[in-house]
Amino acid sequence: MYSVDLNCDMGESFGAYKIGRDEEILKYVTSVNIACGFHAGDPSIMKKTVRMAIEHKVGIGAHPGLPDLAGFGRRPMDITPEEAYDMVVYQIGALKGFVDAEGGQLQHVKPHGALYNMAANKPSLADAIARAVYDVDRNLVLFGLSGSELVRAGQKHGLRTANEVFSDRTYQQDGTLTSRRKPDALITDHEQAVNQVIRMIKENKVHSLQKVDVDIDVQTICIHGDGSRAVEFADYISQTLRGANIQLQPIGEFSTR
Amino acid sequence: MYSVDLNCDMGESFGAYKIGRDEEILKYVTSVNIACGFHAGDPSIMKKTVRMAIEHKVGIGAHPGLPDLAGFGRRPMDITPEEAYDMVVYQIGALKGFVDAEGGQLQHVKPHGALYNMAANKPSLADAIARAVYDVDRNLVLFGLSGSELVRAGQKHGLRTANEVFSDRTYQQDGTLTSRRKPDALITDHEQAVNQVIRMIKENKVHSLQKVDVDIDVQTICIHGDGSRAVEFADYISQTLRGANIQLQPIGEFSTR
Amino acid sequence: MYSVDLNCDMGESFGAYKIGRDEEILKYVTSVNIACGFHAGDPSIMKKTVRMAIEHKVGIGAHPGLPDLAGFGRRPMDITPEEAYDMVVYQIGALKGFVDAEGGQLQHVKPHGALYNMAANKPSLADAIARAVYDVDRNLVLFGLSGSELVRAGQKHGLRTANEVFSDRTYQQDGTLTSRRKPDALITDHEQAVNQVIRMIKENKVHSLQKVDVDIDVQTICIHGDGSRAVEFADYISQTLRGANIQLQPIGEFSTR
Amino acid sequence: MYSVDLNCDMGESFGAYKIGRDEEILKYVTSVNIACGFHAGDPSIMKKTVRMAIEHKVGIGAHPGLPDLAGFGRRPMDITPEEAYDMVVYQIGALKGFVDAEGGQLQHVKPHGALYNMAANKPSLADAIARAVYDVDRNLVLFGLSGSELVRAGQKHGLRTANEVFSDRTYQQDGTLTSRRKPDALITDHEQAVNQVIRMIKENKVHSLQKVDVDIDVQTICIHGDGSRAVEFADYISQTLRGANIQLQPIGEFSTR
Repeated sequence: MYSVDLNCDMGESFGAYKIGRDEEILKYVTSVNIACGFHAGDPSIMKKTVRMAIEHKVGIGAHPGLPDLAGFGRRPMDITPEEAYDMVVYQIGALKGFVDAEGGQLQHVKPHGALYNMAANKPSLADAIARAVYDVDRNLVLFGLSGSELVRAGQKHGLRTANEVFSDRTYQQDGTLTSRRKPDALITDHEQAVNQVIRMIKENKVHSLQKVDVDIDVQTICIHGDGSRAVEFADYISQTLRGANIQLQPIGEFSTR
Repeated sequence: MYSVDLNCDMGESFGAYKIGRDEEILKYVTSVNIACGFHAGDPSIMKKTVRMAIEHKVGIGAHPGLPDLAGFGRRPMDITPEEAYDMVVYQIGALKGFVDAEGGQLQHVKPHGALYNMAANKPSLADAIARAVYDVDRNLVLFGLSGSELVRAGQKHGLRTANEVFSDRTYQQDGTLTSRRKPDALITDHEQAVNQVIRMIKENKVHSLQKVDVDIDVQTICIHGDGSRAVEFADYISQTLRGANIQLQPIGEFSTR
Repeated sequence: MYSVDLNCDMGESFGAYKIGRDEEILKYVTSVNIACGFHAGDPSIMKKTVRMAIEHKVGIGAHPGLPDLAGFGRRPMDITPEEAYDMVVYQIGALKGFVDAEGGQLQHVKPHGALYNMAANKPSLADAIARAVYDVDRNLVLFGLSGSELVRAGQKHGLRTANEVFSDRTYQQDGTLTSRRKPDALITDHEQAVNQVIRMIKENKVHSLQKVDVDIDVQTICIHGDGSRAVEFADYISQTLRGANIQLQPIGEFSTR
Repeated sequence: MYSVDLNCDMGESFGAYKIGRDEEILKYVTSVNIACGFHAGDPSIMKKTVRMAIEHKVGIGAHPGLPDLAGFGRRPMDITPEEAYDMVVYQIGALKGFVDAEGGQLQHVKPHGALYNMAANKPSLADAIARAVYDVDRNLVLFGLSGSELVRAGQKHGLRTANEVFSDRTYQQDGTLTSRRKPDALITDHEQAVNQVIRMIKENKVHSLQKVDVDIDVQTICIHGDGSRAVEFADYISQTLRGANIQLQPIGEFSTR
């Protein structure tokens, strides 16, 4: 029997602004990454999202991002590793405030957007983020792009880590994601997307765009909470994985150091 | 032997902007209230300030404020009690992240500026703030203006509380502070300021501007960290209180429920 | 022949966050109030909205608000008149930058949300806002709640002003809007809403909730750009007014000092 | 007789936070670059600074920066050229609001910090900024690092431009500034700094760290407004330049297209 975690970004609304179909998606995923007020989210939305996550018994993660609400945390900023450390400690702490207040438990940390991407490639940044997570709570699981510097940094610091894959993205022969700027970056066919994921889980392989198989490790799968077909896909992937004898569980329940 | 806590606001710098002589003041106080990024402070300054506070063995408090950096949290905003609750949980959590990361312990919470003043008079706001503190960690001490709704709300929720007085302010016959807009709001003479404080501690009385004595309770005294004579006054008040047989201690060491 | 201006708030999206059906509503209105980045809007959205407004040949207004994105500018803040002046100059200037860059012309200024409401009642705030508008460009039209201090202040400073009414709100016998907190504040029936507006235009009267007629002046009518029936109502009101022999025109084309 | 402009960044305070000795420096410079609220400055400080600049009869420039107050606009952000265009239009407009309100005239635009540095090297960004300046007001002078892409872009768009040099920085043999990360980036000796500037003005040459002369163009010299010796240096450089038969004038008075 295989186990995998199915995660989704959540709580990305802000004030009067609404993004994402959080309540509907929550029924299908096993873990959620909650925005912490820097790239998205605000205190009221964080509380509401934590509360919903607890009700749905999903794993709760902090989703720290760059301080760039206008850019939704997607624009790389040239921050020092120490600044990254500080931002991550701050945001984990803020979310943990709500998790504690609601009687829940924080499970993991997944950096958002440009911070996630930069941490995948820059060892010094990856190290700072892993240290931040460890220093706040060494029992947290660190999510990073499968095979990335961030996962490596987490392991080095003795954290449990989760290699993350994206269900709707194609891969290069070096194991990296195809850049979104390239035409064939996205997999829009639901069946194809889930078949790729199943093979990743069962065979630890992905077929790259260059038509060679690449090794890939996966403990958690990211799906998206917005877009017109998000809920439909969440339903489809969760059912199909279960039908393929793959157990969906919050990462905290099956990950080991 | 009397005991009292001597507190000061800290960590109010922001990015390239510097306010306050934190390092010098830290030698004299027993507790510090650290800004949490809403009215002042940023993640890097919070870490540095927490670190200094731990080195100096002073009690560490979260100092949550309104989300108004341009107004330094001093402009009243018409927020709902629930919004106040959310802001306070967020900010306590964020500071606690650094305290945890640095191996310290959070001692207290003191709202800042307009939030502090509004909570002194509005029971619903005071209640929301007290609940926020209690829900994040029921062992925290809640600071409020002596005799205020905030102290009352903290007690109602079963929190330890600290009645706070201001060494440089005059009082009205109803026990409230003289408004800063009035000409005789401030006590600029150091000796007079400290004598008023000593009488508050030993006799639980303050001589109001209306020339009648008023009952006042005090567990913690606020001094200021900026201004040309701030360090000099910190030195003077701490020495004079000790000379008057008053022990200076972090509130956490002598407060009871 | 009667003339009236039909206005709508626009450009209230922010970064990845979308609010309002601006493109659809633009077909029906004669003037738009464009958010300036404080309570909503960002530079990219401002440019796009100005561009659309010029294409649709509607009057362009700056819609300055309080610096409170999380609260959408709806939470009253205790700012000084001078701070209000400064905020309004800044925001008009910022929007005018885009209007100049796109070869358009700024027509009017309408404060947003809590700033609008506070300026309706507080003469000192109203005066500061009117001065700000006048100082930036004395040819601008100032929008204010019909009969309010803001309109009065604009007239005092020699600005052209527009008394604004709300199509979907009920009125009190003193000519003020019924508070949104009251159950009968809103008119949800489209026909009733437009009939009230037509009577305001033709007879300068509105039937208050207390069942007495009240005098009311109107040069511009505010309709809303969000809500499920916003576009339908925009279509209905513009057609019905025209059918009632009321000409819809940008305020700048028919207002006089 | 030679002419040169002497400029300084100003209005970089924010709310309760104070940076720079603006009033003192204003006596010595001929142009000022006023922060516009993104990396520093707020509406109230902008008004005050514009007012002081008009009193001192110096040329007034907008100093737009990246939206990063915590990083003081010094951290490169990966923005698109169109986003840069929008930010620059917004900030010029906002400052122009105050200049118009105070009856002054905007003279120039100088991007700040990371935006300035990125625009020196990236043609697409430089082009977007030059377009923004041109579109808001084609009579503005665009400041850029001497010999940079930004100056080139300004010229291409038909703007008057000013090649800017830094009095306290050393140069490389390719005409670029020595990186601040290198040990010999700064010239701390006042006499040496001014001698380098005089030679730039009179001979259009600078002696690089590689001990070869490099061609350099200069119409404006940047001095700093903070630091313990800032005022002293402003006094010294202005006197010494005048003594060397170099006229100090706002760029608008002597620049040509």
